[in-house]
Amino acid sequence: MLIEPTEDDLARLHAITGETPAPVPEAYLTEPRGRHRGQAAALLRPRATEEVSAILSHCAARGIAVIPRSGGTGLVGGQVRGEGPAPVILSLERMDRIRWVAAEDDALCAEAGAILSDVQGAAAEADRLFPLSMASEGSARIGGNLATNAGGVQVLRYGNARDLVLGIEAVLPDGSVHHGLKTLRKDNTGYDLRHLMIGAEGTLGVITAAVLRLFPRPGETVTAMLAVPGPEAALALFHAMRRRVEGLSAFELISGRGVAFVRAGWPDRPDPLADDPPWRVLVEATGPEGAGLAERAEAALAEAVEAGLAGDGVIAQSEAQRAAMWGLREMIPEGNRRVGAIASHDISVPLSAIAGFIAAAERDVAAVDASVRVNCFGHLGDGNLHYNLFPAEGRRAADYRGVAERLTQAVHDRVHALGGSISAEHGIGRAKRDELAARGDPAKLAAMRAIKAALDPGGILNPGAVLAAD
Amino acid sequence: MLIEPTEDDLARLHAITGETPAPVPEAYLTEPRGRHRGQAAALLRPRATEEVSAILSHCAARGIAVIPRSGGTGLVGGQVRGEGPAPVILSLERMDRIRWVAAEDDALCAEAGAILSDVQGAAAEADRLFPLSMASEGSARIGGNLATNAGGVQVLRYGNARDLVLGIEAVLPDGSVHHGLKTLRKDNTGYDLRHLMIGAEGTLGVITAAVLRLFPRPGETVTAMLAVPGPEAALALFHAMRRRVEGLSAFELISGRGVAFVRAGWPDRPDPLADDPPWRVLVEATGPEGAGLAERAEAALAEAVEAGLAGDGVIAQSEAQRAAMWGLREMIPEGNRRVGAIASHDISVPLSAIAGFIAAAERDVAAVDASVRVNCFGHLGDGNLHYNLFPAEGRRAADYRGVAERLTQAVHDRVHALGGSISAEHGIGRAKRDELAARGDPAKLAAMRAIKAALDPGGILNPGAVLAAD
Repeated sequence: MLIEPTEDDLARLHAITGETPAPVPEAYLTEPRGRHRGQAAALLRPRATEEVSAILSHCAARGIAVIPRSGGTGLVGGQVRGEGPAPVILSLERMDRIRWVAAEDDALCAEAGAILSDVQGAAAEADRLFPLSMASEGSARIGGNLATNAGGVQVLRYGNARDLVLGIEAVLPDGSVHHGLKTLRKDNTGYDLRHLMIGAEGTLGVITAAVLRLFPRPGETVTAMLAVPGPEAALALFHAMRRRVEGLSAFELISGRGVAFVRAGWPDRPDPLADDPPWRVLVEATGPEGAGLAERAEAALAEAVEAGLAGDGVIAQSEAQRAAMWGLREMIPEGNRRVGAIASHDISVPLSAIAGFIAAAERDVAAVDASVRVNCFGHLGDGNLHYNLFPAEGRRAADYRGVAERLTQAVHDRVHALGGSISAEHGIGRAKRDELAARGDPAKLAAMRAIKAALDPGGILNPGAVLAAD
Repeated sequence: MLIEPTEDDLARLHAITGETPAPVPEAYLTEPRGRHRGQAAALLRPRATEEVSAILSHCAARGIAVIPRSGGTGLVGGQVRGEGPAPVILSLERMDRIRWVAAEDDALCAEAGAILSDVQGAAAEADRLFPLSMASEGSARIGGNLATNAGGVQVLRYGNARDLVLGIEAVLPDGSVHHGLKTLRKDNTGYDLRHLMIGAEGTLGVITAAVLRLFPRPGETVTAMLAVPGPEAALALFHAMRRRVEGLSAFELISGRGVAFVRAGWPDRPDPLADDPPWRVLVEATGPEGAGLAERAEAALAEAVEAGLAGDGVIAQSEAQRAAMWGLREMIPEGNRRVGAIASHDISVPLSAIAGFIAAAERDVAAVDASVRVNCFGHLGDGNLHYNLFPAEGRRAADYRGVAERLTQAVHDRVHALGGSISAEHGIGRAKRDELAARGDPAKLAAMRAIKAALDPGGILNPGAVLAAD
């Protein structure tokens, strides 16, 4: 049974972190899309792993819910809890150090509260690359990136967040500390607690630090934007490029509608391509200096154009041109926010099913409401699309409140029929919890519940995220 | 409480698999090094996942121990149990089909009993590469490769076995079936049961099938063998190559003693290098056709020789030369077996600690018994060494029985002092179980025990492997 912390509890918890009790700032009770609102009895900002341990020990003994909080940029409501007895928020923001960088081991150790772009910077200072990269990298913190197994724009080459982790330090729900900050490429000593904690969204433990994998900094980068006849051609282009060019690091699909949304808000933004193509791709490859990547990529792209897989295309000739291409890609979420989505979906399907999904889902959506506008974009090379739905011109998302749920059902039905996932990179949080319970593999769900009960018998850690609270 | 199966139990279990009861063949009660011996009340060879499920349901209800068995090539005694009530052996050997190959998705689905080399072959037929590769690939089965998170000779480029898996089908200890055969690069829907089952050595569930990642087949392969002044130079050479050559797929360290052991058994075996260098490396890089890999690799190697990082060196000019280099590397375990090891160690340390480890461990070993001969070889690029100890010339391993344990303690002490692992790629099994319990991270061990109890409350699955049986 969870309880609301008493005055005495709060005094003890604040004594641990050396903080003065104060009202919890509004920013800690909200999430980026404003779809979930949290409550909290206190905000605790520990300075060290021992303080996290002391907080969890106390809360476990008393039955006080703890909501771990990192950058707060998650999109599924994993960082706010509005139900049940008021929890305490455990923010990792004061644990933001890079503990060490070991360039020779291609590794660095970051505390959970380190801002993602600061981690990237520390790697760059050591002439290395930390490849995890996403639009929110200036405010997302690495602990949350790992807790949600974040994806981003370089998954194609470097994998998801979990693939970039060599070891973790984590506080378990009873306050015990798992010391797993190893710098090893191979370590087969027992169950992989690291991979269990990563992606568990703070429900099984609080990751307090991690050893992250670094890579050689690319000496050459080739970036191109190409108009494509459609998703099927985009996929064929992807396979053709992959065969020819080692080091393909990004292959993003962008719809004409996504570009139009950006242009509506920022009319002066230049478009590298002419004639408003209905579909385009942003392709990037990286490699070591002197390996002739540019020549190979150009030849492969020219062949692709000849084969009809792509039309108009531009290869960035300067860092400014490259930035313009990525800037357009990264403005799409901004453009979407400006229009206001009816419903957003973060889905993945097998690569071979992508074009079929896009065609079928468009029909499925139209069958629910023919006025809905689709903006489909994302990480084509990973089979991961952001499939977002918008009101007809002149109408607002609120006008579609009655059909929003049916639209999501229609999209997710199609994803399931194709063996896909309803959460490719954002996680489950609270937004998709009930749908996971309804659609997930029953044996996996039962195992998840058993593991949660075994590691967190009091159910104090992020209750209601991923799994329903008891 | 585990019980020995009754006649009635055995009749029911055999009815599930359609087999006639028979004495369990000796081959199922042994492991490659002959250090552990098993017992068994029956050998069961299910033909389908449903049969595995029915066997586990029955055994869970009755408290009968089940030892999952794959190729039986594991080196830590995970496949045999000699204590407690006689278990049943559940061999996956009749579930050896490749269920499907999806070249466009770069994936194939193999049943757990598929022989690793057959999986490689199925990938090659589809013009793809399945990169998991090791000396035992002709008899190892993929289920065991995943249960132990096998390593091998291409980890440097493609990762460990767990990194090659997109989804699994597994029977949990209560007989329920987890249907997770997804073909997705990104799927953040709940705890990662896949990574928990992989590496759990059959103690949390029986993997019955897996969707495996495929890669483009390399169009070019460069293989070279070079004499190096010592481990430190080998490491410097590794870093130099890694900066210059994309697609480095193997970087193996070989000691002069390892080559001498091979030559003692097979005197006619040609050595690509002259003058018996004390240390050498086997380097391989792969890339797409026409990418100029050979030129780049040759230039980088020439520079390395110039910088004194390598001496005599040969780049394979034909498939036969390449095979000769790998043949020598892969004969080393054979050579070791012929001499007879006092103790074998499968360790990893951070890359930067490798040369220091080799120097210090040699002193540590000599301090216990100065007559011991070291053969240190392995996957340098992964920080993973096989550090094996042999009797002085003219003596036998049995003569060292009194010091074998102290030698292992000395080597493992050094590994621990350097933040390393006592099992880099072989797993824990029964051989290293007590040492893991003594030296492992206490919070991790407690979490492992809680997870085991939660998923397998009767303790029927591979009891005594990884964790002590109750």
